Amino acid sequence: MPYIDMSPAQLAEYRPAIPEPDDFDARWSATLDEARTHDLALTATPATHPLAVIDVEDVTFAGFGGDPVKAWLLRPRGATGDLPVIVQYNGYGGGRGLPHERLFWAAAGYAHLVMDTRGQGSAWGSGGHTDDASAGGAAAGPAHPGYMTRGILDFDTYYYRRVITDAVRAVDAARALEGIDGDRIVVAGGSQGGGLAIAAAGLSDVAAALVDVPFLCDIERGMDIADSDPYQEICRYLAVHRGHEREVLATLRYVDGVHHGRRATAPALFSAALRDPITPPSTVFAAYHAWGGPAEIETYRFNGHEGGECYQQERQAAFLEDLWS
Amino acid sequence: MPYIDMSPAQLAEYRPAIPEPDDFDARWSATLDEARTHDLALTATPATHPLAVIDVEDVTFAGFGGDPVKAWLLRPRGATGDLPVIVQYNGYGGGRGLPHERLFWAAAGYAHLVMDTRGQGSAWGSGGHTDDASAGGAAAGPAHPGYMTRGILDFDTYYYRRVITDAVRAVDAARALEGIDGDRIVVAGGSQGGGLAIAAAGLSDVAAALVDVPFLCDIERGMDIADSDPYQEICRYLAVHRGHEREVLATLRYVDGVHHGRRATAPALFSAALRDPITPPSTVFAAYHAWGGPAEIETYRFNGHEGGECYQQERQAAFLEDLWS
Amino acid sequence: MPYIDMSPAQLAEYRPAIPEPDDFDARWSATLDEARTHDLALTATPATHPLAVIDVEDVTFAGFGGDPVKAWLLRPRGATGDLPVIVQYNGYGGGRGLPHERLFWAAAGYAHLVMDTRGQGSAWGSGGHTDDASAGGAAAGPAHPGYMTRGILDFDTYYYRRVITDAVRAVDAARALEGIDGDRIVVAGGSQGGGLAIAAAGLSDVAAALVDVPFLCDIERGMDIADSDPYQEICRYLAVHRGHEREVLATLRYVDGVHHGRRATAPALFSAALRDPITPPSTVFAAYHAWGGPAEIETYRFNGHEGGECYQQERQAAFLEDLWS
Amino acid sequence: MPYIDMSPAQLAEYRPAIPEPDDFDARWSATLDEARTHDLALTATPATHPLAVIDVEDVTFAGFGGDPVKAWLLRPRGATGDLPVIVQYNGYGGGRGLPHERLFWAAAGYAHLVMDTRGQGSAWGSGGHTDDASAGGAAAGPAHPGYMTRGILDFDTYYYRRVITDAVRAVDAARALEGIDGDRIVVAGGSQGGGLAIAAAGLSDVAAALVDVPFLCDIERGMDIADSDPYQEICRYLAVHRGHEREVLATLRYVDGVHHGRRATAPALFSAALRDPITPPSTVFAAYHAWGGPAEIETYRFNGHEGGECYQQERQAAFLEDLWS
Amino acid sequence: MPYIDMSPAQLAEYRPAIPEPDDFDARWSATLDEARTHDLALTATPATHPLAVIDVEDVTFAGFGGDPVKAWLLRPRGATGDLPVIVQYNGYGGGRGLPHERLFWAAAGYAHLVMDTRGQGSAWGSGGHTDDASAGGAAAGPAHPGYMTRGILDFDTYYYRRVITDAVRAVDAARALEGIDGDRIVVAGGSQGGGLAIAAAGLSDVAAALVDVPFLCDIERGMDIADSDPYQEICRYLAVHRGHEREVLATLRYVDGVHHGRRATAPALFSAALRDPITPPSTVFAAYHAWGGPAEIETYRFNGHEGGECYQQERQAAFLEDLWS
Amino acid sequence: MPYIDMSPAQLAEYRPAIPEPDDFDARWSATLDEARTHDLALTATPATHPLAVIDVEDVTFAGFGGDPVKAWLLRPRGATGDLPVIVQYNGYGGGRGLPHERLFWAAAGYAHLVMDTRGQGSAWGSGGHTDDASAGGAAAGPAHPGYMTRGILDFDTYYYRRVITDAVRAVDAARALEGIDGDRIVVAGGSQGGGLAIAAAGLSDVAAALVDVPFLCDIERGMDIADSDPYQEICRYLAVHRGHEREVLATLRYVDGVHHGRRATAPALFSAALRDPITPPSTVFAAYHAWGGPAEIETYRFNGHEGGECYQQERQAAFLEDLWS
Repeated sequence: MPYIDMSPAQLAEYRPAIPEPDDFDARWSATLDEARTHDLALTATPATHPLAVIDVEDVTFAGFGGDPVKAWLLRPRGATGDLPVIVQYNGYGGGRGLPHERLFWAAAGYAHLVMDTRGQGSAWGSGGHTDDASAGGAAAGPAHPGYMTRGILDFDTYYYRRVITDAVRAVDAARALEGIDGDRIVVAGGSQGGGLAIAAAGLSDVAAALVDVPFLCDIERGMDIADSDPYQEICRYLAVHRGHEREVLATLRYVDGVHHGRRATAPALFSAALRDPITPPSTVFAAYHAWGGPAEIETYRFNGHEGGECYQQERQAAFLEDLWS
Repeated sequence: MPYIDMSPAQLAEYRPAIPEPDDFDARWSATLDEARTHDLALTATPATHPLAVIDVEDVTFAGFGGDPVKAWLLRPRGATGDLPVIVQYNGYGGGRGLPHERLFWAAAGYAHLVMDTRGQGSAWGSGGHTDDASAGGAAAGPAHPGYMTRGILDFDTYYYRRVITDAVRAVDAARALEGIDGDRIVVAGGSQGGGLAIAAAGLSDVAAALVDVPFLCDIERGMDIADSDPYQEICRYLAVHRGHEREVLATLRYVDGVHHGRRATAPALFSAALRDPITPPSTVFAAYHAWGGPAEIETYRFNGHEGGECYQQERQAAFLEDLWS
Repeated sequence: MPYIDMSPAQLAEYRPAIPEPDDFDARWSATLDEARTHDLALTATPATHPLAVIDVEDVTFAGFGGDPVKAWLLRPRGATGDLPVIVQYNGYGGGRGLPHERLFWAAAGYAHLVMDTRGQGSAWGSGGHTDDASAGGAAAGPAHPGYMTRGILDFDTYYYRRVITDAVRAVDAARALEGIDGDRIVVAGGSQGGGLAIAAAGLSDVAAALVDVPFLCDIERGMDIADSDPYQEICRYLAVHRGHEREVLATLRYVDGVHHGRRATAPALFSAALRDPITPPSTVFAAYHAWGGPAEIETYRFNGHEGGECYQQERQAAFLEDLWS
Repeated sequence: MPYIDMSPAQLAEYRPAIPEPDDFDARWSATLDEARTHDLALTATPATHPLAVIDVEDVTFAGFGGDPVKAWLLRPRGATGDLPVIVQYNGYGGGRGLPHERLFWAAAGYAHLVMDTRGQGSAWGSGGHTDDASAGGAAAGPAHPGYMTRGILDFDTYYYRRVITDAVRAVDAARALEGIDGDRIVVAGGSQGGGLAIAAAGLSDVAAALVDVPFLCDIERGMDIADSDPYQEICRYLAVHRGHEREVLATLRYVDGVHHGRRATAPALFSAALRDPITPPSTVFAAYHAWGGPAEIETYRFNGHEGGECYQQERQAAFLEDLWS
Repeated sequence: MPYIDMSPAQLAEYRPAIPEPDDFDARWSATLDEARTHDLALTATPATHPLAVIDVEDVTFAGFGGDPVKAWLLRPRGATGDLPVIVQYNGYGGGRGLPHERLFWAAAGYAHLVMDTRGQGSAWGSGGHTDDASAGGAAAGPAHPGYMTRGILDFDTYYYRRVITDAVRAVDAARALEGIDGDRIVVAGGSQGGGLAIAAAGLSDVAAALVDVPFLCDIERGMDIADSDPYQEICRYLAVHRGHEREVLATLRYVDGVHHGRRATAPALFSAALRDPITPPSTVFAAYHAWGGPAEIETYRFNGHEGGECYQQERQAAFLEDLWS
Repeated sequence: MPYIDMSPAQLAEYRPAIPEPDDFDARWSATLDEARTHDLALTATPATHPLAVIDVEDVTFAGFGGDPVKAWLLRPRGATGDLPVIVQYNGYGGGRGLPHERLFWAAAGYAHLVMDTRGQGSAWGSGGHTDDASAGGAAAGPAHPGYMTRGILDFDTYYYRRVITDAVRAVDAARALEGIDGDRIVVAGGSQGGGLAIAAAGLSDVAAALVDVPFLCDIERGMDIADSDPYQEICRYLAVHRGHEREVLATLRYVDGVHHGRRATAPALFSAALRDPITPPSTVFAAYHAWGGPAEIETYRFNGHEGGECYQQERQAAFLEDLWS
């Protein structure tokens, strides 16, 4: 894959001015306040799995609209004392899958909360288990296949308003779980999961953020240069609904990681891949440069959207160790 | 495009035995009874459009769950007397679009009711306007992008239970409109629209059916041989949800056009394209051979999924003229 | 589809200097004069079709070399008084098809003359019926598959010299038909049809032009940036005939819409699609900016070559209504 | 590339019954008689080229309709005595190119007459130089891009009637050239060239035929199983011109190599490639099995349409040496 | 992805007769004897990694030609007593990667030896570290890109002779490691890894085999029906080296899993994916049916080459538990 | 194919500064000195072939490490006096093939030495016959499929160190052959062959260089903009081996044609294709502008990687004639 975006030198200078809605904070506050009127309804029951040195619990908590959201909680068997926790969000189309699918963080000694993504989990991997229960009514208006344009004509009905709220409530849930050190909650994720981690970091109080090749950042540029889904889902929607550009862009500004990240204060470790056609590096640097707290970024010059993979895991483990040593 | 399915001789003999649920009729009766507990709430108001010799009305009626379903009603300006009506269903992903998009049937002297497809209308064409308002709760469980697998684990929550109910209610609505000859209601459609026309013909009382390259027929074979969406959406869902084959196939048997068509009694004109990779001709012949009433089929030997296009329109107009002359 | 051409701001400024042959007018005058030595031989006989509120006539007129060119003439049944007429040219590879295929303009109250394109009409749609009868001799020299390079080594033998002449004679024919208002002749078309409409507007006296995503404009740039046929047909021809660049470019300058449009005086409504890989927006803006009369342009930011489709039809109907109100 | 056609065992038995027109011989006789009313008008002038040990002449002769057809004649410099000659026809879309492009046969000691293909020579390679001068009038009716469907609605106007006539006249020309041994004229070609060699061998008196992966054999099967052009050109034409299957298939039966080869009496060496998606091996075996004279076939089990390439050249040289030793 | 291979009913009966070399056992004995003349030179040193509950050692042992082969050994931290061990081989093109990449088996309580594949490890994943040190001389003859055809003209020089020998020596190494229960050595792998597991099970004494979508089984059929690499690498090689079919097929028969599996006696759990275009299910069933010991097979009806993924891991863990309980 | 690289005006100015290793000359001297410690071991025996006017000899000489390298030597039969010789290197993946495959230069009166490329010759064409015999040990470390990354972590083990040495020794061999004019040795090649010709011209004493669309020039830019193999092989290797960018780029600087060409003094004729996605024109101009001797360049504006083909052959023959007249 050749270069398709800015050169490293251009990336280092790229700080786009993206219009921010005046009521950005007000509407998110109202959204989260509404969600918190529902009891968190947190449950964690032992899961069936073939693992010997890691324990897994099947977690449920109330997300947007009080809808039950599923997650797995993994931790080293026999751990004592409160553990730091990685709250992880998934990439687009995936679900929490099976309990034994993501073992790195628990094997590395952390508690690991893997949040399911409502309605997703059927495009790759091994499945999701969370309904987008509040999806009815106007929120189920005509949408392009996929999740990007569900309810997109208004922030109130937009799919990602619900998912980001779930992401924030997952942080609430992590804090409420037993055996967790509430001062060491880390939000993490790649691609869509990276976008959700940014939003959760901007909307709640976390200790760190691990953000890989994040989606949902500098969205309008993503729509112009990313040659693949999911950004192109929005373009195809607008190619059909020719008159709705204004409403759609207005809605998207409430979920853009550039605005959410500006509100974050925790230390962050980003990664970008310089040949990434799905979340092009410039859109990642836009969010990285806007980040409100201390931030570092690792770039992978020859990689596409897969980015650093287990190399970046190693880097992240070292980053957290440095942070807390 | 070369041949990918049976030869003409094999097609002529293809009559697959597809398991039919024992409670097929019972569950559909219950479904339609439930829908009819909601008032039809039919409205038809003049639409804005640039046409001079055709009138268009913006129609709304209550579909599944009483949800408002949109349609356009076109008829020749100044028509007098009750007109026969074509109730048309759309192909997958399309919506009713703009009022002046489909002019053939009105120009040919018919009333033409173009039903919107709930939740669709954003993948091609010029848009849809109908929410899938009953989509919340368990009906919004994890689904593959697209509409094929929404709520598919149970017939009660399945997306096409709602859409087929809408299709039947569109026939109810057509009959209730002023200036329509209730003895000459024709259901029609291509691809997904063909599948809906079959279902509507099996579940209601119509005068004829015009069924082009129908989708949703002999579905399990379609999943095995069709090399493209939408049949492959189901396969990819099952490739992720590896344990759910039984439930999914059970649900699909309630929407299979082979079963619905067997219950139809009206005359039907089918068409099939012998090089169609989306709704392969054998799946069309399965439904054609099972049809309960008199039936003819036109085959297009060199065409793919586009089938006969305006040649078939001409054939359909002649078919109806013969029927009523 | 991402952006592949200039940004909106760059498009607004794009006015390329394209060399114009000194004898551009002289050779076109000679061409049209020669064509007009042949009697127009206009005939219009009722066509067989299934329509009730629209009449269709099968029209023949003498085009380039006196060759018979076919067209359909549609008009509202029972129209009285002279009607404005839309003279429409087709996209590349299509033909006039069946009489009932294009109903919008007649349904909107206009006469509508759909010109067949000589030799074309076999790549998509439902067929053409006009021989490229003057194609023999040197005009049938070695050519790349398709129509772009037929006779391209000299303007005298070039295929589009014949087709553009047909397009001008179609305007002559429209004016000569009964029941047509000669002061309200509109030329129209998309893609190749848009290029022909521009040429016809520059070479004859029309009341308006409706030009969508036109082909054959700023051709040399099209060959450099359009990643698909038909512009690439010329490139592949030149990749084989390595020594013929000069002759080929010289011929193409006689058909470039930038030069033809500069000579037009009628009001024009253009449309361009900002993600169009076939007729990239910059080539459309080149023609729009060069247009000799008053001109407006509608842009579709998220669309490819399909452009505005029925949205643009609505816009066009309003444009004509404004023009004549 | 995996297998896409019959197994070797099935190929060995494949002898399809293809309907032959009653007047096949009559119409070809009339065609050739008509062509021979034109003087052969044979000229051969030294060509400019950079070769030292091979001489090249630029040949012109009268083909169908007396149209001038170009060819190169290569022979070893300083050859004495009458040489055997290879009359070679090109693959689809190619032309005779430059004089020094095909050196094998002259380097191997043969005279080599490379016939240009009228109208072709612009899709690959280095160009053609022969007009399809008789292409005007009804022969230039609506056709799919490419050459397969030009004038296809009637044998009289069909493109390949002209090209096959040229191929026969090339044999006449070869015999008329100085320094050629008229008893050792060999027709040869691959793909389209193979189809032309078969036809020329059936319609004239030659000493041998070298036929590689021939096109234009068992054409109707080719249209059903070949997943690429040029067979698919005919299918796409018929997908548009839905009513013309009968005329098109009737025309094609006059050019099918199965019928032409049955009339041949010279020894032939065929080759087929078992993974050939363009001229699938079964269509080659159909012609091979029908061949009227002695015939051998070489199969390349792992090759696609490129077949045996220079391995087959070696085999051919040995075949001719055996024949004449 | 639609079906491309046999139906389930056909698979259940598929038992191909594949010619076996007379000296199959003799040449493999000689090969392994030669390898074992080199000291195993086993070393295991603690690896650097970020894991807390799993220990990783960096293992080296002498493979074919005494060449050093790398592996990771993972086991639960603090495990006491001899552990059963999973000896895992990689898929084509991958390497052992980083120490923390494959955590399932260690987390499930097993020792896990991940063998690097000589020369591979640079096409996907995070890298390999083992030279194909014996690759020089005739073993480095002309080869198609990839590994399939390296030295393929003779079994002695063939790449997979070296790799299979490494696989057998990895079992030797596993048995020689401290803390391993030599009666519970399990060979395992998917795709190429599955083929190697079969060969290792046939050539050494193991307790069980876990074989997923194995490559290198019923190879000649794979070359005929698999539409992708790596089987097609061999076809492309033979498409160039047209005369070498006999030698190549002779070599491949020494590595075919059908022959190796026939010699195995340990219980095996296979898996096949019914829409797998890379290792088509019939080739898997050929090996499964030939297996010399007790065998079970899990089929994934809707999956491609990814097969059962973590579902199959769960099944494998249960299979081993059953075996030893 | 549209433009993908610089415009002609930008190309004319493009002179990149590419870091050159300090020990570039030292390491190449050492490399060649080492190779020349091996006797050239030149043999030339008559080859079997079907040609009559050209003689072919099967040549072997000692290349890198003394490994035997194969070549064909063609010359006009009966030539007297010492002939100028074209030493030709192949494109990537090809081999010397059969003796009668490349006839142009011998037919044009030159001796023609076609060098095989070690290890290659199995991806297209008709085969190679030279082992990469020195490939064992560390030179056979983990590599991406293909040849680009074999031993790439160090110049000493890099594949192209061996191949370039072979190319220089081929010049030595040409000079040592009987009947060759050692003052008129020309190195030539396209793509990889062009890169080797540049290197051979820089590292030995030749009379001219014919360099077409050369590979291995301005390599780092090639990796960034070329959208296909072989440059992308290096990128994919680095996408896996994320930490090895520095070593890989360091190695590549020893083979970059920009550095080798700077050392050349012979006249050169280059060619570049302006739409070449494999060896983009800017990388060719980088080498052309750096060339140390007199140089001309022919550009093909509409061609891709095929470039000028036999047009360029004609140009080259004229270039040599001018040079020596």
